[in-house]
Amino acid sequence: MLLKNCWYVAAWSKDVGRQLLERTIANEMLMMYRTEDGRAIVLENRCPHRNLPLSRGALIGDRVQCGYHGMEFDPHGRCVHAPGEDDTTLQWACVRSYPAEERYGWLFVWMGNPVLADPKAIPDFHRHMVDLEWYSVTGQAFAKCGYRLVLDNLLDLSHTAYVHTSFSGNPEVAELAKVNAEVVDGMVRVTRLMRDIPPAPAFVKYGGYNGNINRWQVGRYSAPSFIYIVNGSTPAEQSLDSIDTTSSNGRWGWEVYHAVTPETDTTSHQFWAVSLPRKFLHESMHQEFDHQAVVVIDEDLAIYEAQQACINSDQNPLASDVSDVNAKGALKFDDGLLKVRGIIRRLYAQEQRVSTEQRKAEAH
Amino acid sequence: MLLKNCWYVAAWSKDVGRQLLERTIANEMLMMYRTEDGRAIVLENRCPHRNLPLSRGALIGDRVQCGYHGMEFDPHGRCVHAPGEDDTTLQWACVRSYPAEERYGWLFVWMGNPVLADPKAIPDFHRHMVDLEWYSVTGQAFAKCGYRLVLDNLLDLSHTAYVHTSFSGNPEVAELAKVNAEVVDGMVRVTRLMRDIPPAPAFVKYGGYNGNINRWQVGRYSAPSFIYIVNGSTPAEQSLDSIDTTSSNGRWGWEVYHAVTPETDTTSHQFWAVSLPRKFLHESMHQEFDHQAVVVIDEDLAIYEAQQACINSDQNPLASDVSDVNAKGALKFDDGLLKVRGIIRRLYAQEQRVSTEQRKAEAH
Amino acid sequence: MLLKNCWYVAAWSKDVGRQLLERTIANEMLMMYRTEDGRAIVLENRCPHRNLPLSRGALIGDRVQCGYHGMEFDPHGRCVHAPGEDDTTLQWACVRSYPAEERYGWLFVWMGNPVLADPKAIPDFHRHMVDLEWYSVTGQAFAKCGYRLVLDNLLDLSHTAYVHTSFSGNPEVAELAKVNAEVVDGMVRVTRLMRDIPPAPAFVKYGGYNGNINRWQVGRYSAPSFIYIVNGSTPAEQSLDSIDTTSSNGRWGWEVYHAVTPETDTTSHQFWAVSLPRKFLHESMHQEFDHQAVVVIDEDLAIYEAQQACINSDQNPLASDVSDVNAKGALKFDDGLLKVRGIIRRLYAQEQRVSTEQRKAEAH
Repeated sequence: MLLKNCWYVAAWSKDVGRQLLERTIANEMLMMYRTEDGRAIVLENRCPHRNLPLSRGALIGDRVQCGYHGMEFDPHGRCVHAPGEDDTTLQWACVRSYPAEERYGWLFVWMGNPVLADPKAIPDFHRHMVDLEWYSVTGQAFAKCGYRLVLDNLLDLSHTAYVHTSFSGNPEVAELAKVNAEVVDGMVRVTRLMRDIPPAPAFVKYGGYNGNINRWQVGRYSAPSFIYIVNGSTPAEQSLDSIDTTSSNGRWGWEVYHAVTPETDTTSHQFWAVSLPRKFLHESMHQEFDHQAVVVIDEDLAIYEAQQACINSDQNPLASDVSDVNAKGALKFDDGLLKVRGIIRRLYAQEQRVSTEQRKAEAH
Repeated sequence: MLLKNCWYVAAWSKDVGRQLLERTIANEMLMMYRTEDGRAIVLENRCPHRNLPLSRGALIGDRVQCGYHGMEFDPHGRCVHAPGEDDTTLQWACVRSYPAEERYGWLFVWMGNPVLADPKAIPDFHRHMVDLEWYSVTGQAFAKCGYRLVLDNLLDLSHTAYVHTSFSGNPEVAELAKVNAEVVDGMVRVTRLMRDIPPAPAFVKYGGYNGNINRWQVGRYSAPSFIYIVNGSTPAEQSLDSIDTTSSNGRWGWEVYHAVTPETDTTSHQFWAVSLPRKFLHESMHQEFDHQAVVVIDEDLAIYEAQQACINSDQNPLASDVSDVNAKGALKFDDGLLKVRGIIRRLYAQEQRVSTEQRKAEAH
Repeated sequence: MLLKNCWYVAAWSKDVGRQLLERTIANEMLMMYRTEDGRAIVLENRCPHRNLPLSRGALIGDRVQCGYHGMEFDPHGRCVHAPGEDDTTLQWACVRSYPAEERYGWLFVWMGNPVLADPKAIPDFHRHMVDLEWYSVTGQAFAKCGYRLVLDNLLDLSHTAYVHTSFSGNPEVAELAKVNAEVVDGMVRVTRLMRDIPPAPAFVKYGGYNGNINRWQVGRYSAPSFIYIVNGSTPAEQSLDSIDTTSSNGRWGWEVYHAVTPETDTTSHQFWAVSLPRKFLHESMHQEFDHQAVVVIDEDLAIYEAQQACINSDQNPLASDVSDVNAKGALKFDDGLLKVRGIIRRLYAQEQRVSTEQRKAEAH
């Protein structure tokens, strides 16, 4: 159930340059590079002549030269030279060019109908990643699971209590949270509020707490697969009345940005960042905090991949879509992720309907 | 063609403890542990909530806590706690619990309808494994082949002549054996008698022979996949009249116990032991004998896996069941294994018939 | 689209001896050995009894003994001994024997109907491989791609300009070649003539040129998958009138012999040789030239395997045969390889028609 008419993060901007970068997104092989004047280009990674990935070739100025028989393609994917041919305007000899935009360190690509690609729909929740007042740890993971298993994880943060016990979790994060999921501005927002609970290790080590705290986690999902989480806290004795928990980190906290890009139905790229105001983390702790962020990601990866293997091995699956979670039932905490799955199903049905209509129209 | 209404060996008893042990049997993911009072528990290894294998979680007293969102299951597989839920008696939130029994070092599990699980049907042929008068070498192998290829091997011991030449085989074991296969007490018994043949290496090294011997191999199969073999010998000049070859080892010999548990249609767990009266093996030879037993198992594994690969690669298979042996014809020595395959087919057809009837009954 | 009624190279003659050699060709498992008097034998590598590959057994005189239960097969594939059986003429107990012939260092096997096997159809284009006046480098590669991708490569040598830049390629080989493809004597002949171009590295290093050259590449394809290429050159100022470029190497050049044998639909064995008159290569340069030949093969392998992976990943393939090249269009230089693909399609259709008729005839 891979959506196409949407923006995905294809790469970190810093990783796209004058080397040809290959990556599969939503089952399509892409290659990326920058023109001499710095524009990011995303092309289909498949020479129309003999099916060599163009990323095996060379960049000559702004053109990509196929590494097999020397055909050259411009940034629009048009063949502009074919050795031995008089006519260089071969109609068939083109590769697909994908709309691409950059925002705050991420290169976004539009995988569907290019007519529908609206740059205004590109999210900007991750702008603190490039804010000098904020300290950020960033990374990229490859998960051998369908992208929705990653979204599930991020939309039910009660897992923190059991999976991330060395950083942000303790049992009270699951047992004592008041959780509310709602659809706000076309996004799903999951609010978790925990009053007067012991501080998890990160709040002691980096936040400096030694007594109980009030804590909140506010996650926002926007389609197809972006997650923005605000983590905040105050001392337990301090009232929460004056704090807008949807945007503030309180006395100590951090933000998390995730872009989960399907590679195939059962594999995913995960682009992630953890950002917090510089005043919240002493420079001497940067290295340890960086390491801790990677540990958290790795803990989640181990879960996803074990889930996917377990789903694959099911002899009597309930769900017809094998990359789906195949749950036998739902808990209250699943409210947010069920809303998200509803949105994805609706968008997917809409795309299928449109492409069926298009095929019918083309047939006439 | 995996039978379900039967006992399989799931593990060595010694390997089941307070660590969660995961293993797939007959295509189903299981996990095993012991309660605080020592009972062996076998549960479905799949959280009904988000499909994480429960073996990735923790044992808290006698309960298993899922490593993802903290749901807890008792030894009956019932959810007894779900963080954040008021109602802890969630009907859907249960995992299957499998009947389990221990006998003489093996943990047996019943994979089918629990109503039919009869502990009296558990075999005890392997009891010498825990008899202090006997010396035993034990082990566990993983075979990348269907379980019936392993049974075939053990039911036609003429292979000893070609596969195990450093231990129990010489050409006479194949060429000069009188072989008889019969169904006795619901079991298949294959009797092989070789009179006045040279002693194979094991009979010289461990048995102390230097002249010809009379030798017997009596194998018994019981469903679904248990094999018990008595190996015995006397000097060639000694009459066999006074010896019950079905139970005696004569002047020198040994016994072999195999439990072959299908993991999937084309992979198997093999639990094995070689036992012999302590008087038959001087203590100084234990280490070498142990090593030799493992060599024999490895020799057979190489055969099974080459067979399975060969069967898989067949472009024009005769048998519809690809994990079957796909033989073009049979030799006399195949009589025993053909009887076994007949029993398995009959039991399988019977299970299919019952489950079809059950589904019909449920539909009304 | 694997042809069966044809000769394939199965092995280098030197690799076939008194060890059993196993190899899969056109999806069939084969084993090869030599009789005591030196004849090469090719048999089906699958015991009809229990499906062990016979190559796991032993050679006893001219017979192959199965490594599992000791059945013995003669060079015709007939069972001539089965331990424990009185009747050794078991009708079912035979393995297929394949017609085999040796020519100039290669062992050829006929994979189809043996009645049609005509030794006169075996090619001899590679006879310089055993000519003492010629120096040869030989090798064998395993390509994870369908065999036609290898043929494509060899039939469009413009790729030399982009793939083999350290040996035989420079841009002029693609840009300035006059190319002609024709069917001659049932073979496809592709002639490439390049006048007055700079010498590629091999022509400088081994050929001793320092000025421009005239250069030719003449490739010949014969079914199912043999390629013979003549490479030649003269100084640019010398007339080509007196030279038969179809057979001469001119002042400097070399020949290439390829036999591409499908293992499966998407994997291939490539038997190759590069030969040149001894006077063209000083002995001190042998080692470097040998190395260079292997580099060229490896450069092509990297292309093939990237193509095959790219073809496999195509979500909307044009061609129904996934091992085909799935090209969106053709260039002029593709003329030769399109003719070859036409021949293969025609031969394949013919084989399918015949076997359909045979099955019908057998049914009556």
